[in-house]
Amino acid sequence: MFVKDTGSEASGSSSQKFKVTVLRLGHRLVRDERISTHIGLVSRAFGARRLVLTGADDHTVDSLRRLNARWGGDFEIDYVKNWRELIRGWEGIKIHLTMYGEELNKGIEQLRAKKPNEILVVVGAEKVPRDIYSLVNLNIAVGNQPHSEVAALAVFLDRVFMGEELYNTFGNAKLRIKPSSRGKKVEFVNED
Amino acid sequence: MFVKDTGSEASGSSSQKFKVTVLRLGHRLVRDERISTHIGLVSRAFGARRLVLTGADDHTVDSLRRLNARWGGDFEIDYVKNWRELIRGWEGIKIHLTMYGEELNKGIEQLRAKKPNEILVVVGAEKVPRDIYSLVNLNIAVGNQPHSEVAALAVFLDRVFMGEELYNTFGNAKLRIKPSSRGKKVEFVNED
Repeated sequence: MFVKDTGSEASGSSSQKFKVTVLRLGHRLVRDERISTHIGLVSRAFGARRLVLTGADDHTVDSLRRLNARWGGDFEIDYVKNWRELIRGWEGIKIHLTMYGEELNKGIEQLRAKKPNEILVVVGAEKVPRDIYSLVNLNIAVGNQPHSEVAALAVFLDRVFMGEELYNTFGNAKLRIKPSSRGKKVEFVNED
Repeated sequence: MFVKDTGSEASGSSSQKFKVTVLRLGHRLVRDERISTHIGLVSRAFGARRLVLTGADDHTVDSLRRLNARWGGDFEIDYVKNWRELIRGWEGIKIHLTMYGEELNKGIEQLRAKKPNEILVVVGAEKVPRDIYSLVNLNIAVGNQPHSEVAALAVFLDRVFMGEELYNTFGNAKLRIKPSSRGKKVEFVNED
């Protein structure tokens, strides 16, 4: 659980080893807007490169893009019309996060064994189409209790990147936070 | 990062060492209902014992109680009118999860050093009252990028309980999932 690969090159940080794209399935307008925004924020903060939504939702996209502009980085957000095509055509490993999959640690081991470069992480809403289970390479369960796709994604990425993602720096940021035990310490960088 | 305490008694599982209560601040009706439900689900699934809400929200409470009945366990949900009083009177350690706190790993080390039994974890919404930072013993940042209180809580609890919480069993469950790499395997237990 959460053990570093000792076989890997010592200089390379694990966060550079994987390129993660998150595919958010089953977004229903308004009802899921805030959850999709949280999915997007978590994707970015926990080291993914890109979020793909399956329904047009300008509110979610706008708020994520505004955030990028302030907090930096080159996280991408876009839509896909036919998500099955995206999954089928994916060159790399395809993971589905679900209550019903392989135990998290075993799943991560299997993922590492495949030495992937590009990873697609499919995150559903409450109900997902049945065929998703066989469209992917691995179904991974972040626990077997019902909880939250936001939490499942965060814990999955935290384990994949072994905690290093939390200390990623984001280029072109206007704001940066200095860790502090009491209250807010914010640096303003690259100010106009 | 995510290292087991070797000094602790070998037989005791870490998940039994802490009793965690989650205090959800700043719930605004409707807008935050789904996020608060996710906070509740994550609290339960990741090993907390109790969720305290600061605003009356029957929808969130009902859906969490229904879920308890199906999936088991004795997770509690209640309200508090004066949350400052709850924090001030808390006998145990008080943690606030925020973007602006101590780095996660350092914070967890400090938490463990205090050898707490009862932990109160305060989780805010987008804006929290400024005095919260000094009402608690520790402000802990799950990363310094904006993301999600749901994700912050999950990752924090996952580190506190060292991943063991994901394999907790819940008494009196009607449903239980068997981990499986392909699709759904559900056991029905204690059926009427």
